[in-house]
Amino acid sequence: MQAYRSLATTFSRLGAIEDASGILGWDMQTLMPDGASEMRGDQLATLSVLAHEILTSQKTADALAQAEDETGLGEWEQANLREMRRTYIHASAVPGDLVEASSKASTRSEMAWREARKQGDFAMLAPHLAETLRLQRQIGEAKGAVLGLSPYDALLDGYDPGMRQARIDPLFALLRATLPDLLGRAQARQAARGPALPLLGRFPIESQKDLGLTLMRAAGFDFERGRLDVSLHPFCGGATDDVRITTRYDEADATRALMGVMHETGHALYEQGRPAAWRHQPVSQARGMSLHESQSLLIEMQACRSREFVEFLAPRLREAFGGEGPAWEADNVHRLYTRVEPGFIRVDADEVTYPAHILLRYELETAMIAGDLAVADLPGAFNDGVSRLLGLTVTNDREGCLQDIHWPGGSFGYFPTYTLGAMGAAQLFAAACAALPAIRPALAQGDFSALRGWLRENVHAKGSLLQTDELFVAATGKPLGAEDFLAHLERRYAADAAVS
Amino acid sequence: MQAYRSLATTFSRLGAIEDASGILGWDMQTLMPDGASEMRGDQLATLSVLAHEILTSQKTADALAQAEDETGLGEWEQANLREMRRTYIHASAVPGDLVEASSKASTRSEMAWREARKQGDFAMLAPHLAETLRLQRQIGEAKGAVLGLSPYDALLDGYDPGMRQARIDPLFALLRATLPDLLGRAQARQAARGPALPLLGRFPIESQKDLGLTLMRAAGFDFERGRLDVSLHPFCGGATDDVRITTRYDEADATRALMGVMHETGHALYEQGRPAAWRHQPVSQARGMSLHESQSLLIEMQACRSREFVEFLAPRLREAFGGEGPAWEADNVHRLYTRVEPGFIRVDADEVTYPAHILLRYELETAMIAGDLAVADLPGAFNDGVSRLLGLTVTNDREGCLQDIHWPGGSFGYFPTYTLGAMGAAQLFAAACAALPAIRPALAQGDFSALRGWLRENVHAKGSLLQTDELFVAATGKPLGAEDFLAHLERRYAADAAVS
Repeated sequence: MQAYRSLATTFSRLGAIEDASGILGWDMQTLMPDGASEMRGDQLATLSVLAHEILTSQKTADALAQAEDETGLGEWEQANLREMRRTYIHASAVPGDLVEASSKASTRSEMAWREARKQGDFAMLAPHLAETLRLQRQIGEAKGAVLGLSPYDALLDGYDPGMRQARIDPLFALLRATLPDLLGRAQARQAARGPALPLLGRFPIESQKDLGLTLMRAAGFDFERGRLDVSLHPFCGGATDDVRITTRYDEADATRALMGVMHETGHALYEQGRPAAWRHQPVSQARGMSLHESQSLLIEMQACRSREFVEFLAPRLREAFGGEGPAWEADNVHRLYTRVEPGFIRVDADEVTYPAHILLRYELETAMIAGDLAVADLPGAFNDGVSRLLGLTVTNDREGCLQDIHWPGGSFGYFPTYTLGAMGAAQLFAAACAALPAIRPALAQGDFSALRGWLRENVHAKGSLLQTDELFVAATGKPLGAEDFLAHLERRYAADAAVS
Repeated sequence: MQAYRSLATTFSRLGAIEDASGILGWDMQTLMPDGASEMRGDQLATLSVLAHEILTSQKTADALAQAEDETGLGEWEQANLREMRRTYIHASAVPGDLVEASSKASTRSEMAWREARKQGDFAMLAPHLAETLRLQRQIGEAKGAVLGLSPYDALLDGYDPGMRQARIDPLFALLRATLPDLLGRAQARQAARGPALPLLGRFPIESQKDLGLTLMRAAGFDFERGRLDVSLHPFCGGATDDVRITTRYDEADATRALMGVMHETGHALYEQGRPAAWRHQPVSQARGMSLHESQSLLIEMQACRSREFVEFLAPRLREAFGGEGPAWEADNVHRLYTRVEPGFIRVDADEVTYPAHILLRYELETAMIAGDLAVADLPGAFNDGVSRLLGLTVTNDREGCLQDIHWPGGSFGYFPTYTLGAMGAAQLFAAACAALPAIRPALAQGDFSALRGWLRENVHAKGSLLQTDELFVAATGKPLGAEDFLAHLERRYAADAAVS
């Protein structure tokens, strides 16, 4: 096992570099002064190149080949070695100068996006985005050539190992066929019940933050190994033993930041629950972004927007903000938290219309990577899609193709993982509740322990031991599908009987 | 110039790694959750080892030798090459595993220090400090062997290039011989004038912070390329184009944090004024820690505690905190800011007694590195020294040898730079005021521009172009000495005539 042990040392070092980049990236989005962006780009690019050099060195290649001939590896070591090989393939397929150019371009493009979004001016972003796209297409082509995949599948595989366009297409087609009717019935039921009462007032940021921290604690976030901060675009980042989630507050809205916090807490519980014995080894990593998103959506959508949890939440909301009257009753708060309405902004979308945002972005990014859609034509294509899929007319790119950081940041192939994650969340939550019927009643007491225990055992502590569908089969008895998600939407939004 | 150019690329990469470590180190002291300390230690150690490997590689060694034979290098390139060689010597003298062990030990020791200081329990720190000292002695021996220096001189040279124990000894002996009498006369003058009136009240942190930011702006701190935050032990850190200073606030004290902020602002102006055309090259670096400290003390002690600047400051203090009465008059505020009183805590010490704290630490750390003082005997020796040099009795190590982060953090050879810096500050300020007599009157208007311009030209923008004493000769007409410092103390604290 000498070669394997040498690889473990190498990957431990790579893990530390990745963690360093994680903190630098978090800082860039939360605290960094604007004038530091070029130098920060240099720092991240340098770390990225160093990691790339270590990972793709002849020494690593030789050790991988030798380790794959070694005997005596246990189940975890074997999975670790498989993930090392996967990581190596993804990295070695891309030349070092392309890695560096792409990292720098993405940083510049992200900074341009901040300003372009502020001013609603796509032209400010366009040349930077074009360069980022050009380099991502090159990366997709380079990886695809080695993996025997199309450029888009190769990029997708970097976010969600094993996922393919051919697997997504029928799942998304099912959603596209089913959701318009479901949305119509959900809106009809909503109209019949009359509008939910708004929570009116000013809701001090400090109180929102305190309540968010209380809920994070209830869900089991470990503050000895993590933080909550503020950024323009909420995310879960940071490093091993230092998981940092962010949110943004609006003093006119009592409910939104709170669910944002619980969403990121779902991501954080996954990160904090990864197998500690394998820290910095590839097998300890989360199993792809679809599964990651399943954890955030499971906490936010399945658990925290459930009728049971709102029973626990509503009196605490009322107390935190000094609310009075029927608007603050659990029934009404639940109706606010399960309101359905097509809108422009993806991150504000409800569960029923969210998939439309993803279907659109998936359609556009597959076209951009295939070379069928130029950056100059993006705003038009985006706005056409919003009209077609959501029935809305975009009048400012800030509400259109400038709303998301993903493409400027160089993330093509990431968007589908949101909706694959929604499917996974529903499927895992259904299995957890079937195995432990006490989960739902406990949520009404603000008690996440049974749910968290099930997730820790069946998902978090597995790291990357299992491939994604192996994990779904082990945990739920079947591979990832759309049925539980559609059944959940039907039950919560369209059924005549009790809401869930 | 091919070899030189290749070195410039290598050192640019090293600069980016150092910058990354700078931000990670800042984060560790300001925001990082406690549970992340081990992993952060891994991150910093990994970056340190990577930088060490690059710097000490055969490729760097060969390029250095070749570049030193190349012709056509300009003045800056030659100085850059000289600094590259110096950096290389310091690094290559120390084996990689010693660098890594020492980095990890220092991180652990720093974390133990936080807790030990909180609890006033030296025993909690002792084993960690012993390990840190052991490794620093090894580093000193390894460097000394190559540089032909004693271990202590070798460590000192890492903080203050060219500085030697033999140069410090007579300077410190002069202070030791002169200051007790000066202190006596200062205290007598102070007693004759009667006590300064205290500023009483509670001073909200937000107001202290706002006033600090106002003064930072007046001094010329560039907030597009830096930040002000909070940490237990104030420092100036961060990275190129991202200079981060910290302070700590006390709601019962209106004046202390403010001067702390201006002290760190002095450091920051140096960092922000380094030659931009040479970013990430060794020649762009600040010229050692004594000169760095001269910049912080020049802003804090020479400029901001001057009678002129207090004229500008006093009404703003009064306005910020709603102060009323004679205590808030400039005369009284100046007396508060120039009060002399022997005390336990170095960072709270006045200008006249501060050198005693340094003489003690210098005496102890030279003994520890020489192997003449064991960590177990440190508290006793420290307390004896406080009694001998300051006439005070230490009753809790929190007020004694646990007060400073330097030794736990592995910094031996750093302390003398504080008092060398005080000498340099007096010498540079005297030369600046002689060259531009408008500097002092401008400070009474809160206008630092003339002073900053002189510093930028004569100190900041020089980077490491000149050796320290060359810079002092060019800027002040003579090498670094103690005369201007003693003359300044005499004038401000002991003279019968007008205070300065």
